[in-house]
Amino acid sequence: MPETMSETPLPFAPPGTKAEVEEGHAFTPRFDRDGLIACIAVDAQDGRVLMLAHMNAVSLAQTIETGEAWYWSRSRGELWHKGATSGQIQRIVEMRTDCDQDALLITVDVGGDGGCCHTGRRACFYRAVERDPQTGQVRLRPAGE
Amino acid sequence: MPETMSETPLPFAPPGTKAEVEEGHAFTPRFDRDGLIACIAVDAQDGRVLMLAHMNAVSLAQTIETGEAWYWSRSRGELWHKGATSGQIQRIVEMRTDCDQDALLITVDVGGDGGCCHTGRRACFYRAVERDPQTGQVRLRPAGE
Repeated sequence: MPETMSETPLPFAPPGTKAEVEEGHAFTPRFDRDGLIACIAVDAQDGRVLMLAHMNAVSLAQTIETGEAWYWSRSRGELWHKGATSGQIQRIVEMRTDCDQDALLITVDVGGDGGCCHTGRRACFYRAVERDPQTGQVRLRPAGE
Repeated sequence: MPETMSETPLPFAPPGTKAEVEEGHAFTPRFDRDGLIACIAVDAQDGRVLMLAHMNAVSLAQTIETGEAWYWSRSRGELWHKGATSGQIQRIVEMRTDCDQDALLITVDVGGDGGCCHTGRRACFYRAVERDPQTGQVRLRPAGE
């Protein structure tokens, strides 16, 4: 079961005109057909990209209300208060949205051991995609965390 | 029409076991039910997050083959060689994937004027989402580009 949630999550208005969406001051997040919006989390300490996850309207509202990152776990099909069990709480320093308001960028202070990845690594993007110029084969190699 | 493409795009093997996906050296990108994978583009000059867009298997293969970012435009429903008309070509310095291989992170050198956003701004995340602590109202305000 998810943790206790606000009984009145913030409503989000639907997107307006292209000009309103791109230049306006109204926050009208554009959720995809699964009701999700992609969210990039960046570490406030050094700007490193920690992870990419998704929020639905409820988790986004909860994130704004609590100042801590709540996601929607696509694999588990449930609300996910990041760090609730690991201690790796992501406290929101700043949240941004992009030109067409279909993506979010959060800058976070990370609790616990400062990591985010369930594999135990600090960040999720720990492998580089490389193509061997001779063979053309594409492989992953460990890269800095 | 898209630009000329390779006749033999790289095939991508389907994901294996959880251990293989998370710890292996095989690149097995996990596309969503629309055949897309999210890709974060970061500026190699300063690590700033420029944009988030999507790739399908063809654009991902084309990106790896050419060393320049190709996306799938969801709004236009077509392959999108970033910068082909604006000059804002994104040359791939490094491509990474995340733990479950359902997201990409590319570090890029940007051509042309160094920007990426169709609104003319350098990056797409130019507005912060803020909640007024008194009224509870959520609004966007211009933030650094």
